[in-house]
Amino acid sequence: MSAVSESSGGGDPLRRLTKLLARLPGIGEKSALRLALAIVRSDDDYTRALSEAICDVHEQLRLCSVCCDLTGQELCSICLDARRDPQLICVVAQPQDRMALERASVFTGRYHVLHGVLDPLGGIGPSELKVAELLARLEGMLERAPDERVSEVIVATSPNVEGDATALYISKLLHPLEINVTRIASGVAVGGELEYADMTTLHRALADRRKI
Amino acid sequence: MSAVSESSGGGDPLRRLTKLLARLPGIGEKSALRLALAIVRSDDDYTRALSEAICDVHEQLRLCSVCCDLTGQELCSICLDARRDPQLICVVAQPQDRMALERASVFTGRYHVLHGVLDPLGGIGPSELKVAELLARLEGMLERAPDERVSEVIVATSPNVEGDATALYISKLLHPLEINVTRIASGVAVGGELEYADMTTLHRALADRRKI
Repeated sequence: MSAVSESSGGGDPLRRLTKLLARLPGIGEKSALRLALAIVRSDDDYTRALSEAICDVHEQLRLCSVCCDLTGQELCSICLDARRDPQLICVVAQPQDRMALERASVFTGRYHVLHGVLDPLGGIGPSELKVAELLARLEGMLERAPDERVSEVIVATSPNVEGDATALYISKLLHPLEINVTRIASGVAVGGELEYADMTTLHRALADRRKI
Repeated sequence: MSAVSESSGGGDPLRRLTKLLARLPGIGEKSALRLALAIVRSDDDYTRALSEAICDVHEQLRLCSVCCDLTGQELCSICLDARRDPQLICVVAQPQDRMALERASVFTGRYHVLHGVLDPLGGIGPSELKVAELLARLEGMLERAPDERVSEVIVATSPNVEGDATALYISKLLHPLEINVTRIASGVAVGGELEYADMTTLHRALADRRKI
């Protein structure tokens, strides 16, 4: 029996909200009910603002026509920023990944957001990702002056089966363009304990060892 | 630096939604961002339905004038149900607790929802709870025929410091009315392992031992 399926005079709006919230990723039925009850208890201003914000993100956000990141304008702030190195493109799976890299302030180039990774079992093929947009973007740069051309594409998808497959696919796709395609390093996390690293991580940390 | 504080052309509606979601209980900034991005990606129908449902629960739900549970009408379905035993009242902290008891189909009486437990450190005193409503409800029944009067109030708040304090407070409050006030049993959970039970639970399980 579901957590909110019992009949209740006022159950309807609550049950409807709970079911909608439970469709969000990582929100089970119990969490959805807890959130719905918190929304019931919150003040008018909050619920109105939340309701509007949900419509707004959906209506106002679109994909940057260059890098496919989320933006409120035609181009995102990074693509508009002339100080960003146009020769480096970092390919990430999701907007969150771009945000994480920006937070770390480790990358001065530009981005390309795929909006997913290849996952044949989950029905995600290249046509579901912004891969054609990446290819078109790079091909469009071939005619430019050498210092405006992309010299390196860094594939920063997560180091797991899907992320690795996506990186391999992109490197093959871009092979004819003669652009360096690189992959972020992976291994034991900095600050992590060797004894707690999983076997695959240890395997890769050893295989990718570098001279010091 | 916060998870979404970096400047981004399209960050505004996204950041606003993320901040609002992060105010819900159990939702940190990273979860809020993940939820907000899922909402961005979801279809029009979903976002419209979610937005409306949020307004609806807040506008349509109110507290049952008898038991203070959430309802869309003046009275909740349990208070309207003539088959429910009017002599037994089960006092719970939250609507979720009432739902959990109803799911288990273990109680045939009526409920009273306190909407919280006593928590002096958190600034929750008796006036923040629906305690006066409980007292008024029971006092109003004193003049009725004996078989319509409440014979027992079962306090089913969780067995922790706040829940126990609330139960004690209610039992003292109802003492002049000469109504039996009882407390749900607590001890090692059925199906649980004794070796994994915490010390307080073991202590109570021993102290509350029963003859078999």
